[in-house]
Amino acid sequence: MTELGIAMVGHAFMGAAHSQAWRVAPRFFDLPLRPVMSVLCGRDADRTQAAADRLGWAEASTDWKSVLDRDDVHVVDICTPGDTHAEIAIAALDAGKHVLCEKPMANSVAEAEAMSEAASRAAERGVRAMVGFTYRRVPALGLARDLVAKGRLGRIHHVRAQYLQDWIVDPESPLSWRLDKEKAGSGALGDIGAHIVDATQFILGDPISEVMGTLVTFVPERPLASKHSGLSGTAATGQTGPVTVDDAALFLARFGSGALGSFEATRFANGRKNALRIEINGSKGSIAFDFEDMNVLQFFDGTEDPSVAGFRRIMVTEPSHPYVGAWWPAGHGLGYEHAFTHQAVDFVQAVASGVDPAPTFADGLLVQRVLAAVEDSASSRTWQQV
Amino acid sequence: MTELGIAMVGHAFMGAAHSQAWRVAPRFFDLPLRPVMSVLCGRDADRTQAAADRLGWAEASTDWKSVLDRDDVHVVDICTPGDTHAEIAIAALDAGKHVLCEKPMANSVAEAEAMSEAASRAAERGVRAMVGFTYRRVPALGLARDLVAKGRLGRIHHVRAQYLQDWIVDPESPLSWRLDKEKAGSGALGDIGAHIVDATQFILGDPISEVMGTLVTFVPERPLASKHSGLSGTAATGQTGPVTVDDAALFLARFGSGALGSFEATRFANGRKNALRIEINGSKGSIAFDFEDMNVLQFFDGTEDPSVAGFRRIMVTEPSHPYVGAWWPAGHGLGYEHAFTHQAVDFVQAVASGVDPAPTFADGLLVQRVLAAVEDSASSRTWQQV
Amino acid sequence: MTELGIAMVGHAFMGAAHSQAWRVAPRFFDLPLRPVMSVLCGRDADRTQAAADRLGWAEASTDWKSVLDRDDVHVVDICTPGDTHAEIAIAALDAGKHVLCEKPMANSVAEAEAMSEAASRAAERGVRAMVGFTYRRVPALGLARDLVAKGRLGRIHHVRAQYLQDWIVDPESPLSWRLDKEKAGSGALGDIGAHIVDATQFILGDPISEVMGTLVTFVPERPLASKHSGLSGTAATGQTGPVTVDDAALFLARFGSGALGSFEATRFANGRKNALRIEINGSKGSIAFDFEDMNVLQFFDGTEDPSVAGFRRIMVTEPSHPYVGAWWPAGHGLGYEHAFTHQAVDFVQAVASGVDPAPTFADGLLVQRVLAAVEDSASSRTWQQV
Amino acid sequence: MTELGIAMVGHAFMGAAHSQAWRVAPRFFDLPLRPVMSVLCGRDADRTQAAADRLGWAEASTDWKSVLDRDDVHVVDICTPGDTHAEIAIAALDAGKHVLCEKPMANSVAEAEAMSEAASRAAERGVRAMVGFTYRRVPALGLARDLVAKGRLGRIHHVRAQYLQDWIVDPESPLSWRLDKEKAGSGALGDIGAHIVDATQFILGDPISEVMGTLVTFVPERPLASKHSGLSGTAATGQTGPVTVDDAALFLARFGSGALGSFEATRFANGRKNALRIEINGSKGSIAFDFEDMNVLQFFDGTEDPSVAGFRRIMVTEPSHPYVGAWWPAGHGLGYEHAFTHQAVDFVQAVASGVDPAPTFADGLLVQRVLAAVEDSASSRTWQQV
Repeated sequence: MTELGIAMVGHAFMGAAHSQAWRVAPRFFDLPLRPVMSVLCGRDADRTQAAADRLGWAEASTDWKSVLDRDDVHVVDICTPGDTHAEIAIAALDAGKHVLCEKPMANSVAEAEAMSEAASRAAERGVRAMVGFTYRRVPALGLARDLVAKGRLGRIHHVRAQYLQDWIVDPESPLSWRLDKEKAGSGALGDIGAHIVDATQFILGDPISEVMGTLVTFVPERPLASKHSGLSGTAATGQTGPVTVDDAALFLARFGSGALGSFEATRFANGRKNALRIEINGSKGSIAFDFEDMNVLQFFDGTEDPSVAGFRRIMVTEPSHPYVGAWWPAGHGLGYEHAFTHQAVDFVQAVASGVDPAPTFADGLLVQRVLAAVEDSASSRTWQQV
Repeated sequence: MTELGIAMVGHAFMGAAHSQAWRVAPRFFDLPLRPVMSVLCGRDADRTQAAADRLGWAEASTDWKSVLDRDDVHVVDICTPGDTHAEIAIAALDAGKHVLCEKPMANSVAEAEAMSEAASRAAERGVRAMVGFTYRRVPALGLARDLVAKGRLGRIHHVRAQYLQDWIVDPESPLSWRLDKEKAGSGALGDIGAHIVDATQFILGDPISEVMGTLVTFVPERPLASKHSGLSGTAATGQTGPVTVDDAALFLARFGSGALGSFEATRFANGRKNALRIEINGSKGSIAFDFEDMNVLQFFDGTEDPSVAGFRRIMVTEPSHPYVGAWWPAGHGLGYEHAFTHQAVDFVQAVASGVDPAPTFADGLLVQRVLAAVEDSASSRTWQQV
Repeated sequence: MTELGIAMVGHAFMGAAHSQAWRVAPRFFDLPLRPVMSVLCGRDADRTQAAADRLGWAEASTDWKSVLDRDDVHVVDICTPGDTHAEIAIAALDAGKHVLCEKPMANSVAEAEAMSEAASRAAERGVRAMVGFTYRRVPALGLARDLVAKGRLGRIHHVRAQYLQDWIVDPESPLSWRLDKEKAGSGALGDIGAHIVDATQFILGDPISEVMGTLVTFVPERPLASKHSGLSGTAATGQTGPVTVDDAALFLARFGSGALGSFEATRFANGRKNALRIEINGSKGSIAFDFEDMNVLQFFDGTEDPSVAGFRRIMVTEPSHPYVGAWWPAGHGLGYEHAFTHQAVDFVQAVASGVDPAPTFADGLLVQRVLAAVEDSASSRTWQQV
Repeated sequence: MTELGIAMVGHAFMGAAHSQAWRVAPRFFDLPLRPVMSVLCGRDADRTQAAADRLGWAEASTDWKSVLDRDDVHVVDICTPGDTHAEIAIAALDAGKHVLCEKPMANSVAEAEAMSEAASRAAERGVRAMVGFTYRRVPALGLARDLVAKGRLGRIHHVRAQYLQDWIVDPESPLSWRLDKEKAGSGALGDIGAHIVDATQFILGDPISEVMGTLVTFVPERPLASKHSGLSGTAATGQTGPVTVDDAALFLARFGSGALGSFEATRFANGRKNALRIEINGSKGSIAFDFEDMNVLQFFDGTEDPSVAGFRRIMVTEPSHPYVGAWWPAGHGLGYEHAFTHQAVDFVQAVASGVDPAPTFADGLLVQRVLAAVEDSASSRTWQQV
């Protein structure tokens, strides 16, 4: 089988998830190309080599640019903080490498536009680009989209989307690159808000057209972590630094179809660990999802006899559900990282088939524009068109 | 409208619930007769008078026998401990009074048989008898029975019934009449186990034919409560007395149809306050119920496309659900005592229509025989026919 | 015991709920005054008399003004549509009658101000006024307030409040007075949005200071119901009329303390019957509530060891919980109408004690101002101060 | 790092799960030895080679005995039907190979005894044996055991364990080796009942001492599948064969400590896909678990103020939870196969440390004796000592 050589840039949380995906995908799915975990790129030689050994990459490199020249590298998989996405992705695409880029795609609309243009140029030469909104590949959300597409919800009236975490609710929790606007672009908005924007647009097949939002930073100063904890600098204990991103982002939205949306992304929802929740109400039915119970989709069929109608707790572990047939028997749930495996599968199949894998960079740009509109709205205190 | 004069015997927990039922029933339901709360009977004159005032009875009496002679009393409602049920019920029926008798109907099969015979004799004269298995009147369990009767569950394979409480898990919790075999007949078995025996036989329309069980008393000695706490005697603090009933009763069962049952009644399920749970699995579907969420029935329709099948959380608050139309709009749940109101309604309607209200004393006898078979089985350590 | 004579105006849904409250309150709670259900007022003589008979009122009247002159009437209980509240309440207060007024208190801020002023004048003479935000009296929400007041949630960051119903999701569902701006003032906003505004302000003890919202009417024309279905007029089947209120209202909010709120009230959430949901996240903990499981409060204690921390499903049926001790043993849940009974209890006790019962008309005015600010914001498309 | 060569026998469902475990374990956990997926053994050459390619084994073999002579094979991992376990495991142990054997360990007590003796002999030579009750390695059940061991539940009163599936509720579902007593030993009892026996004994650290049970086969004849579907023979469509195992097994149990158990294993619980449920009630608290929500443990702390006590939904995804720290941030749940990875990790660490990995073959024998006692009890219709 033809090999598909992969270079991955970055080796933290997302790097571990993507590595697992490349490793596992060919063991459960029939892939038209064989992914090869060729080279892992990072900034620090020792740490990159150690990560390559642990994560199972054949080589380590501190120069991501050098891999663009290698013939045995066909894919660049970008798992770095958002401020580097545009540079790496555009260079890789221009060098003829397929690109899988973590979300949020970029730190600004301008960057996202440049990336989207690079992806368009590349597509003409058969080079593919995909952005890593992995939640699309959670089977329950795939099923949600199917139900909407089949008309089981009818005309959509309401979208209620929340992404609730609590990892920095403690004001003594230290600064990290995710709280630094230069690195991260934004806070809860771009990190987790981006996911619910993409997921709801994906499920509805309908883009957000205008938004009205607000951003808040509850804890504006935090302890500086020591050198190796992620932030550059030589901070000693006792010093603090400014949080330059939002702790929480809330916005109302209107979709193109007229559906009303209520969105909330926060890192201050005490007790909610990774509660990506989506509820959609239509004229014929409703669905509800919570990632803290990720193998389940709730579905209400409003066309049934009211005496027996009710939200059904569908265990999305049947062979007929998206991706599930490749795994275990019914009732044997999947975990967080399986969506990354599904993403790798779809990416490889799209590359082999010569089609653009969704979500495309154009989809990523769409999300970026929503995020920018939210930020504009938070400043202007009025509705903003996307 | 013709009046239906009621005399109630007993004024503790059940007395309060029955009083509420007689008071409220005619306000929400169209009744063919008008219940009149005529006289409340108890042992202690002062306490009975105080209860009559509080609960809204026109008179108080310390002589239940005397009310049997009154022409303005048509119904005797028995809310006393089990050891007095047979005497009162038989006397009342023989005196031509309709009887509503709290469960467990009796403390022995012999008593229950005598009561059932008295009810048969009375029925020939148009006098009615009913036993108070109120959970039959929880709308969700009424719906459960309807679904079974309509064949929505198919052939029944499994019945899983639990009644879990924790009110005496603390070994310092004092003795009460409910822990005294003379008064109560049995412990968890008769008090709460009786409910799940009746409820499952009601839902299935199928009697239990044999059982294999065990009884246990985890805490065999408990502090004696002071005089006025319920147990007669002159116990001072510091003394203990024996618990003469079971703390928990577990049994396996076979229904006439071949369905397998697993039953458990306990007062030692820490954290479970009134968890009457029933799950039934059939060849076409399943239902599940928990009284701690009493307005909900879970229903799984196994004939659906597996992609969208799942246990539905039916809010049993629709106008089409049993009894519900008389109350509030959809989504406005009922509480514990509503089932007593429904019981009063059905009792009055049966009396007016000249039919036997279910559960009849024959039904109560059926339950009593199951309880006795469980006790025999616990002694003999073998299966017992009912 | 001194009697407290009550005249109630209106006898539909709310009239039935209030009647049940007056009837039941003295049977479970020790009241300092004895409520007497004296007279029921309505517009149509026959229907009012029938309602009085069914609901248990001594007399019926078609002239609410006349009852203000009666010495045996001490309380006027207003259960009519919102457009009549101001007139009746002010007249009653000025006549020296205590007033319990259903929510929303009024159809405009101006009316609410006049009512609040009347209540202030009356209070000087010992005459009391209360507005019927009954959800305050659901034990789980009382417990929520207690937890916040005791600091168990710490600094409040987020309030997430939804009131979701689906009763007019069918576009063929007919017009009713609730869809007529003249009668109802507003739609989902005032009918159910008002409840979550009051409930969250009550739980937090902190008023909303600014809002940004939007209103939508998904189905602008509906069939006219026939004469007796509620709307005056002589509509024949086949005709339609305009919906002049909102079907759904969404708004973001800031509380005085800096907490962020997200509010949504809708009659189009298919499958949600009466889902009043409140989630509050603070620096030390969180609570979550859903009226569809009304006897439960979820509580997360963020100060616990993370290994055993989790949202607790508190069955709010313990004797130590607000109001619960008067009812049944632990685990025996209450229903929708119990909150009305608690409201009656608190009203009677406040009247007897000579204190203002909360929520006062000033509280009602506060809610009205939030609703008005939402409407202004929906028009101006900007944030509005309350 | 020293290599640990592995030969796996069998390549169906369990083979896939074990392969994933060997592949993934060293990528997330620091292992003292490096597992090498050396050789996969099966009966059919072509199918075994295809499985080896798909699952990532270096070689394929149709002769499992031959691998016992290889110096590069240190471990034999047995994933075949139960009738072959004893022969393979004993031979492997005697040949000095460490053994990981799928459950149920054997098809009879005699076989299990022989295996346990072989394991004892092997242990003297530093050769290790482990039986694959993987549910012990689900983090939530590890936490359950920790809570019991720390005394958080106090004295245990009740164990309620169910393993509910529905995969053969359709009477047209064909015969498979799992329904053939020769191959499988028993039906639901050994296949899934064994899991709840082991899991509860593991959590309590307390063995079952006597049982009283019943077995049932609801559908005694089923269609024969065609040749390649698993059953040997030459069945043509239209023929049926006998089901020689139980469809469901129910039993009551007493643990050594006096705790009462209620167990149920069935393949006929319509709508329950893999509902391994365990609820344990003790004098100080309770826990509840359902594998259909596998990342959650419910815990009730009965020592808390009743006003705030309730079952907590602990997301068992914190770094402090068993095994979890090696994976993802809090709230990012694990799936079914992660427990196999944890099992591989513990096995490798035990081998490297020279200690016996639990559950040992002695533990497996203990389970086998419980299963045998249940079968005896079902025949004799009396309680049986284990």
